[in-house]
Amino acid sequence: MTEGREGVRGLLVGRFQPFHKGHLEVIRHIDRAHPGDGGILGVGSAQESYTLTNPFTAAERQEMIGRALSEAGITGWISVPIADIHRHALWVAHLRELVPPFDRVYTNNPLTRLLFERERIPVESTPLFERTTFQGTHIRTVIAEAGPWRAMVPESVARYIDSLDGPARIRLLAHP
Amino acid sequence: MTEGREGVRGLLVGRFQPFHKGHLEVIRHIDRAHPGDGGILGVGSAQESYTLTNPFTAAERQEMIGRALSEAGITGWISVPIADIHRHALWVAHLRELVPPFDRVYTNNPLTRLLFERERIPVESTPLFERTTFQGTHIRTVIAEAGPWRAMVPESVARYIDSLDGPARIRLLAHP
Amino acid sequence: MTEGREGVRGLLVGRFQPFHKGHLEVIRHIDRAHPGDGGILGVGSAQESYTLTNPFTAAERQEMIGRALSEAGITGWISVPIADIHRHALWVAHLRELVPPFDRVYTNNPLTRLLFERERIPVESTPLFERTTFQGTHIRTVIAEAGPWRAMVPESVARYIDSLDGPARIRLLAHP
Amino acid sequence: MTEGREGVRGLLVGRFQPFHKGHLEVIRHIDRAHPGDGGILGVGSAQESYTLTNPFTAAERQEMIGRALSEAGITGWISVPIADIHRHALWVAHLRELVPPFDRVYTNNPLTRLLFERERIPVESTPLFERTTFQGTHIRTVIAEAGPWRAMVPESVARYIDSLDGPARIRLLAHP
Amino acid sequence: MTEGREGVRGLLVGRFQPFHKGHLEVIRHIDRAHPGDGGILGVGSAQESYTLTNPFTAAERQEMIGRALSEAGITGWISVPIADIHRHALWVAHLRELVPPFDRVYTNNPLTRLLFERERIPVESTPLFERTTFQGTHIRTVIAEAGPWRAMVPESVARYIDSLDGPARIRLLAHP
Amino acid sequence: MTEGREGVRGLLVGRFQPFHKGHLEVIRHIDRAHPGDGGILGVGSAQESYTLTNPFTAAERQEMIGRALSEAGITGWISVPIADIHRHALWVAHLRELVPPFDRVYTNNPLTRLLFERERIPVESTPLFERTTFQGTHIRTVIAEAGPWRAMVPESVARYIDSLDGPARIRLLAHP
Repeated sequence: MTEGREGVRGLLVGRFQPFHKGHLEVIRHIDRAHPGDGGILGVGSAQESYTLTNPFTAAERQEMIGRALSEAGITGWISVPIADIHRHALWVAHLRELVPPFDRVYTNNPLTRLLFERERIPVESTPLFERTTFQGTHIRTVIAEAGPWRAMVPESVARYIDSLDGPARIRLLAHP
Repeated sequence: MTEGREGVRGLLVGRFQPFHKGHLEVIRHIDRAHPGDGGILGVGSAQESYTLTNPFTAAERQEMIGRALSEAGITGWISVPIADIHRHALWVAHLRELVPPFDRVYTNNPLTRLLFERERIPVESTPLFERTTFQGTHIRTVIAEAGPWRAMVPESVARYIDSLDGPARIRLLAHP
Repeated sequence: MTEGREGVRGLLVGRFQPFHKGHLEVIRHIDRAHPGDGGILGVGSAQESYTLTNPFTAAERQEMIGRALSEAGITGWISVPIADIHRHALWVAHLRELVPPFDRVYTNNPLTRLLFERERIPVESTPLFERTTFQGTHIRTVIAEAGPWRAMVPESVARYIDSLDGPARIRLLAHP
Repeated sequence: MTEGREGVRGLLVGRFQPFHKGHLEVIRHIDRAHPGDGGILGVGSAQESYTLTNPFTAAERQEMIGRALSEAGITGWISVPIADIHRHALWVAHLRELVPPFDRVYTNNPLTRLLFERERIPVESTPLFERTTFQGTHIRTVIAEAGPWRAMVPESVARYIDSLDGPARIRLLAHP
Repeated sequence: MTEGREGVRGLLVGRFQPFHKGHLEVIRHIDRAHPGDGGILGVGSAQESYTLTNPFTAAERQEMIGRALSEAGITGWISVPIADIHRHALWVAHLRELVPPFDRVYTNNPLTRLLFERERIPVESTPLFERTTFQGTHIRTVIAEAGPWRAMVPESVARYIDSLDGPARIRLLAHP
Repeated sequence: MTEGREGVRGLLVGRFQPFHKGHLEVIRHIDRAHPGDGGILGVGSAQESYTLTNPFTAAERQEMIGRALSEAGITGWISVPIADIHRHALWVAHLRELVPPFDRVYTNNPLTRLLFERERIPVESTPLFERTTFQGTHIRTVIAEAGPWRAMVPESVARYIDSLDGPARIRLLAHP
């Protein structure tokens, strides 16, 4: 769940709709740079589900993360659901109330960077892994169109999405 | 974070204000009954903090849990913050949206039992470990009165609470 | 559901936990004073349930009302759930947004009277029918103590509460 | 308000902006299939009003329903306002808390179908009555453009909308 | 802060993103028509910030107003943050709960006019001062494009926006 | 409204139910220590009204403040309504979003002190002026009992409370 060293973890916030290979590569990258530290995954928009942008519940997304990291042999990472607060100026305080201590944030989103830097929290960029492919919007479209989405997510996640009838759910949300 | 076997975990909901030895014994008890399954800890009233009943933030409580389980060598358990929804009839649905799949619930609270059984989810009681001692309200009172609270929580939790100036915080909340 | 004459109904707001013979007598009294007008029952604290003060859901309370009025042969009344808004100064506006037009309010509660009169809505008192007996708090206590509660509510309501295992629910909430 | 037979009603959820002849035909259709059962109309997005999509308050919409059913001689139906909960995964639980018992749901909306079926509640489709004409969006546009909308709603509803200055309100919302 | 005469102030509601010369002219115009009365500025969407439509916090917007009025030598006006309530039918009641007494409202927005007139509150139009130039959306676009925005706002507001790194913030929100 | 010097104001948070002579003395005290700086009054629990603890709306409380400061010849102070957020760990961030810049906080409340110091904001105590007399709870009790409350508040506030029928309101809330 966590490990001996304390308070030196990084935080990566995403919606993980679904958790895909791009996410996994970022986590591997952080893990190589800070071996043994583990990290925290903030599962954003946790209150959303059954919409085209957010088809999966926070529970399902945490389950995907757990299976993918287990399959990849990555340990020491935890995931925490983060409901939207709809007030940008309070968002960092909201996050800090819910998430165990972290000492840096990984993001490529400029607004996220601005909000954390306003609170004097260090922000690092992450390398992009085939950004046009490994991107939630694109993968949801491929799922809706019955394209080759299974190659875009870890194998354990593909099996889990199938077990949820995920493709039918997304098709229905895409073509109501 | 999680493990190979799927969907066979139990769920234990508490507020963990603070995480104490009674909690640890219940987790050990479940772990012995279902070796290797791990489990889920729902951190209730996650939005509350800095009150006498809920002195610690959800982040701090998850950190306590992580350290205590690491100290005890217990693996495969995750913790998930659960904000109050203030509508009892929706509480189980709210929980299921946020928490990965579980197949049974551990509780000694009759209302919690009723709400889960209404949704046909199996509920098991947990053994009580010196219930009068290992009880959140009692431990917070002992902390407020500068009594021997450190023996009531795992050693790593005692150290963490001290590092937060937790006793001063609770004294202030008890005697404003 | 409603009737030919328009906008001349009275409004009676209560929590109906449970609907009892005192409520029925007030409705009969209004019906005799304004024959054929029907009326509106606002089911207050609609979001509350499974608490000692509000054991039944809004759905269950509306079902009680429907059965009791049908049993009593009273027609032309409708019930509308009203969630709490927790802002007294907005409460009348909130109610008017949810409830069909009414031209007077029945209440014996001084704050309710004040809030409606502030908006220039006429308020009438209702006669009290054995107020010490026919009062929600008292009836819930009698149910919790397995006393003679069935005589305090309409027969159809007593049967419905039994069908819900209502007495067990209230006992559990009274003695958790 | 309700009738002797219990718990065998169907539920039809809509926004009824405004209540139109298509709604009335669906209700007649259900009534013919289940004579004497009555039914429940869930008035969705109850908290919305004075927007182009939701011009009328829940109170006004319930009034339309009451008048139209009275005009049509249909009895045994009730209407219940349902505020949005903005969490799809909780929507069915939210609805069940507010609405009296029902044993089936009528809808042609695929997401609504999915959410109810997830909870094992039977869902039936409804026949479409001149769907392109009898559709809220279309009727609101015709009202905004001062077209022949009065023929699209029951006569009592047309009179009521006129009494509210409804056409002026919708024109203003359409062309702010 | 306020002045001797009581309850004869006008209310002007806006979002003031940012406070610009058009706002100042309207205030001057009201001040000339009602010398010595002062007035109330309702700062709408107070909970919004760090979005393209609402880049500045309510605190920052109140600071702009205070500096601009001080610079212009206008006294007796106060500003009050008004969070959105997302229920149009309650909006006037919400406003009246938060804002000191006013006897008229200044607006050119037809929906605002409708909602106030529904509550029998007098509404006056305001003259438009070069409406295409002095308009929030336009000025934010000019800021995002590094155009000549400083001439569109009072000098003290321009300096304040610069001290906040406002142009960088708006550029980032416009081109994320 | 504000003055030339910038960002050097103090903040005083209270509920001002009602604004009394003790508040006025604290403001005078701050004004003498920092002449010409003005200050900010945060009107807490702004969403509450018509309860025994919070009888007056935020609008009424701001009106009291405006009249009392005008009567006392104190200038440069502004008041801002602050709705409760019910999450202590976010309270300071919430306040900073709504209130213009301040550089110190005046409070004698230990929890308020703790929450601000956690964010590294300087906190100063205020002298207590006949604390047992000039205290909101006490004054509300005196009003409810028709005691000599008018001597406890500024003259202009006493007149305003009388104009609101405030004593009748408080009596009703005290003895419902």
